[in-house]
Amino acid sequence: MKVSTEIRPLVDVTDRNCPSRLVLEHVTSRWGVLVLIALRERGYRFSELRRRVAGVSEKMLAQTLQTLERDGFVHREAHPVIPPRVDYSLTPLGARAAELVGGLAHWVEQSLPDVVAARAAYDGR
Amino acid sequence: MKVSTEIRPLVDVTDRNCPSRLVLEHVTSRWGVLVLIALRERGYRFSELRRRVAGVSEKMLAQTLQTLERDGFVHREAHPVIPPRVDYSLTPLGARAAELVGGLAHWVEQSLPDVVAARAAYDGR
Repeated sequence: MKVSTEIRPLVDVTDRNCPSRLVLEHVTSRWGVLVLIALRERGYRFSELRRRVAGVSEKMLAQTLQTLERDGFVHREAHPVIPPRVDYSLTPLGARAAELVGGLAHWVEQSLPDVVAARAAYDGR
Repeated sequence: MKVSTEIRPLVDVTDRNCPSRLVLEHVTSRWGVLVLIALRERGYRFSELRRRVAGVSEKMLAQTLQTLERDGFVHREAHPVIPPRVDYSLTPLGARAAELVGGLAHWVEQSLPDVVAARAAYDGR
């Protein structure tokens, strides 16, 4: 009997069948990233958040928030007032995700001069 | 004369006109993330990398590598041998990007049980 000696982690984002790959895609999606970063600042109402995350359509923001809520990263609180008000904030799990995503974004901002220099070298060769 | 008192950082990923937003999208793109994570392990040849990053098409992998190379994250080395051989590896800048992206991926893997529980609660209410 042949026994495989390869040890693979049970949960592995590089395995296309692992559900963790989809979760990673949710927190790294174009709008997922920016929503998490915005909600690090404070809770937002939908329309405020849409202004803060410049460029997102209503439909895409609603879809992004719903995905992040279902994954347990975002808390949605509907207030029974007139006119209706819905607030979005990070859960403790979402706060940790946002911290990691925010750290990456901050590093990208800081590294922009290096990236611009690399592109100039690439385009000029 | 009205003077704005709002202080905005010069480089800001949430500003839709800031070039850093696009760089962040490159390192957080579906395949960008997985390529960076794979190249943390070691340098890869194109075909090897395609197997490692399961599910990516030849065209998408080539495009992802070219984008990451132009941004200065990936080093491409063509060896003058027969048959031709091209190796891909991380630059020092890319190694730091991969470290941050890898940290996020690792956290997502660890948090999968929490996400699964959150989804069950969401779907069951």
